[in-house]
Amino acid sequence: MPRQMKLIAFMQAQNCSNYPASWRYPSSGTDWHDSRYYQRIGRILEDGKFHLAFFDDRLAIPDRFGDDFALTIEHGIRAAKLDPMLTALTMGLATERLGIGCTYSTTYYEPFHVARSFATMDLLLGGRAAWNVVTSVNNSEAANFGRSEHLAHDLRYDRADEFMEVVHGHWDSWEDDAIRNDKAEGLFADPAKVHRLDHDGRFFKSRGPFTVPRSNQGHPVIIQAGQSGRGKTFASRWGELIFVIYPNLAVGQASYREMKDHLAKTGRETTAIAPAVYPIVGETQAMAEDKRALIESLAKPADAMALLSEVLNYDLSAKDPDEAFSAEELEAISGMQNIRDRAVKMSGKPNPTVAELVRASGRGTIRELPVFVGTATSVADQMEEWFTTACDGFVVSATHSPGAYEDFVRLVVPELQRRGIFQRDYAGSTLRENLGLARPERGSWRRAG
Amino acid sequence: MPRQMKLIAFMQAQNCSNYPASWRYPSSGTDWHDSRYYQRIGRILEDGKFHLAFFDDRLAIPDRFGDDFALTIEHGIRAAKLDPMLTALTMGLATERLGIGCTYSTTYYEPFHVARSFATMDLLLGGRAAWNVVTSVNNSEAANFGRSEHLAHDLRYDRADEFMEVVHGHWDSWEDDAIRNDKAEGLFADPAKVHRLDHDGRFFKSRGPFTVPRSNQGHPVIIQAGQSGRGKTFASRWGELIFVIYPNLAVGQASYREMKDHLAKTGRETTAIAPAVYPIVGETQAMAEDKRALIESLAKPADAMALLSEVLNYDLSAKDPDEAFSAEELEAISGMQNIRDRAVKMSGKPNPTVAELVRASGRGTIRELPVFVGTATSVADQMEEWFTTACDGFVVSATHSPGAYEDFVRLVVPELQRRGIFQRDYAGSTLRENLGLARPERGSWRRAG
Repeated sequence: MPRQMKLIAFMQAQNCSNYPASWRYPSSGTDWHDSRYYQRIGRILEDGKFHLAFFDDRLAIPDRFGDDFALTIEHGIRAAKLDPMLTALTMGLATERLGIGCTYSTTYYEPFHVARSFATMDLLLGGRAAWNVVTSVNNSEAANFGRSEHLAHDLRYDRADEFMEVVHGHWDSWEDDAIRNDKAEGLFADPAKVHRLDHDGRFFKSRGPFTVPRSNQGHPVIIQAGQSGRGKTFASRWGELIFVIYPNLAVGQASYREMKDHLAKTGRETTAIAPAVYPIVGETQAMAEDKRALIESLAKPADAMALLSEVLNYDLSAKDPDEAFSAEELEAISGMQNIRDRAVKMSGKPNPTVAELVRASGRGTIRELPVFVGTATSVADQMEEWFTTACDGFVVSATHSPGAYEDFVRLVVPELQRRGIFQRDYAGSTLRENLGLARPERGSWRRAG
Repeated sequence: MPRQMKLIAFMQAQNCSNYPASWRYPSSGTDWHDSRYYQRIGRILEDGKFHLAFFDDRLAIPDRFGDDFALTIEHGIRAAKLDPMLTALTMGLATERLGIGCTYSTTYYEPFHVARSFATMDLLLGGRAAWNVVTSVNNSEAANFGRSEHLAHDLRYDRADEFMEVVHGHWDSWEDDAIRNDKAEGLFADPAKVHRLDHDGRFFKSRGPFTVPRSNQGHPVIIQAGQSGRGKTFASRWGELIFVIYPNLAVGQASYREMKDHLAKTGRETTAIAPAVYPIVGETQAMAEDKRALIESLAKPADAMALLSEVLNYDLSAKDPDEAFSAEELEAISGMQNIRDRAVKMSGKPNPTVAELVRASGRGTIRELPVFVGTATSVADQMEEWFTTACDGFVVSATHSPGAYEDFVRLVVPELQRRGIFQRDYAGSTLRENLGLARPERGSWRRAG
């Protein structure tokens, strides 16, 4: 069988898609707080044989820019955020094969809680759950959780490493054949096959025994997106599916090759790497171009500064747009450092200006991600080129919702299937079976560390 | 219209019902980790016009007795515990009118997280969510969450009071008419109608603005079960539905009258009080008696000590069954103090023995709660007597699952409806409408404090 791409939908439990201006699109759904919104999108994606849909998370609305949330609320740019675990389960219960992922932070929750929630979701969905691990990026989130400042970047990852050890340890508490259900003998489970973790580390203590048995896929699939130096080490240790942002094909090819080599060295060569992209497809090239023009027209310039302050965890309101960042200021950016690094690369300057940073990030516009515009044939051509040299699949992001997913499934998916580079049906019933990942044996994560 | 009772189902996201031996019942479901198990019970309860189903929680399996979990696992006495928020949502998405409640602890989660999860569930279920507030009772839970010891009883309630203030404050962040959804003007919501909480208290700090708008019922209904002195004050301040355990009718009548008087004084007279009970119903009296005998035969004596050590947060393994508790030992019981108080009352001694405590608690047996055995007519008679003098409804607990709910809905519900003391259909679409509770205005909880 030829190599086939993985397709993953990037979901948001909020009033807009990944594209913050998307809610202004004429046919965007306004029912994002209704279960039917998530059920409908789930069914569309499953019709399109998507491997997985995963929900983003943020524990605050953007208000770092000038310490003010008025613009965020007025412009509706990520102005709300539901608990993504619950929207994810809602989508999962409306589908049968689609993998269901959710982002949860290692910074603001206890590992026992996170382990229990994801293990429960994995059982309730018959082994289709995934966890997108994030360390959280900013002070607004810290303020909602009673801390005055966010943890420093690298320390956050040290803590996250230990968090993952606790979670994986708990997930392995019950041996696969522990449960006996022998009603007549009164033997529910074999006590010798259930174990306490007794973790006592630098950041966490947790004893066990864990209260949830293993699922039929062993444990949830780990999605990871770290792209900074320390983040890459973390991602290659824990990630079973790596979600990336490649600004263009050339950067993508180089980064993909580097990461694949690294993964091969650590024995994790089955891990798929998938960049986020915006497909914009139309029945004709002109229809697709018109759609792109409409989508682009929805962005407001003021949105970029607010959204960028948020992910960088840096208030840009104090600086003039044409003022260059000092070395100290660049160092003080504690959020998504890959955006800063990209601005340095794209501007060709060690000290880019605010305007250059905004431009390089594309924040608040669809230029934040690669955009594939055209007919089904043209979009499939672009995807095939990337797939051949720069990735194993795509995190398909919606320029508007649910319309962009409807368009993609109706037009592009059949073309990818015709070319033999995307599945016509699911390979199995669990997410691991569908992603081609082995069911992890108990304790196997220890060897990867 | 005559006064009608509220019916509430007591759910467990675990391998047994409230009755720990229930899994040994011949027709008990072994699919408690499957979504279909919860969906099926939800549909049964909605057929029976139950007002609400709510899930219990515990953040550990019983292992206080001799610091050992082997008996718990072997005997299957609450040997597992899924995340009840997810089983609750599963049941909610399979139903349309049934209220859906979930227990979450104020001790091991952050208020922002709890506020967000419940607000999200309330939106996804169209205003049908409830939160059963607990403060958590024991060291096993503490150990899973990295703390060596559980907080003292009264301090736990002080902390819980502040926790509730933060949660209710966040729930009131968005005014009801804040969202505008004006796509053409680009006005998502009115920034003047979204507020930061800026809470900075003794135990918690949380800023906001909260990320979830209000639901159509305002916010989730609060269920509370505190029965100790400090717990009663907490319950009467926050509880909108009070869940109690009354060992018998005489105690129930006295306690009900006392609590109702107290609630009337605080202006919360609409709050319903519902004791947990086990109905055992059969087509004939003999069939019901046989069923009771079978159910009782499933309990194992060893279970009682393990289960009691757990809720009392006191290791009973060190004491001889006939040894009396010293005053210091009774004081050291930091878990559910109402069980200790009941043993004092039932034994007629200030210093009861271990055996007397076990007997008074009924732990591990169905004698833990009042048992209504008989035909539909007989069970309805018993319920009517209680309802007339000692309660506003019942927390119907299952002796086995899903069978006990199927029996109750098939046999007892039509008899209660025939008598006019239970609803033939739901009054509205939200849980508040169905419970006869007013939709809370923003900030109204502050006046109740």
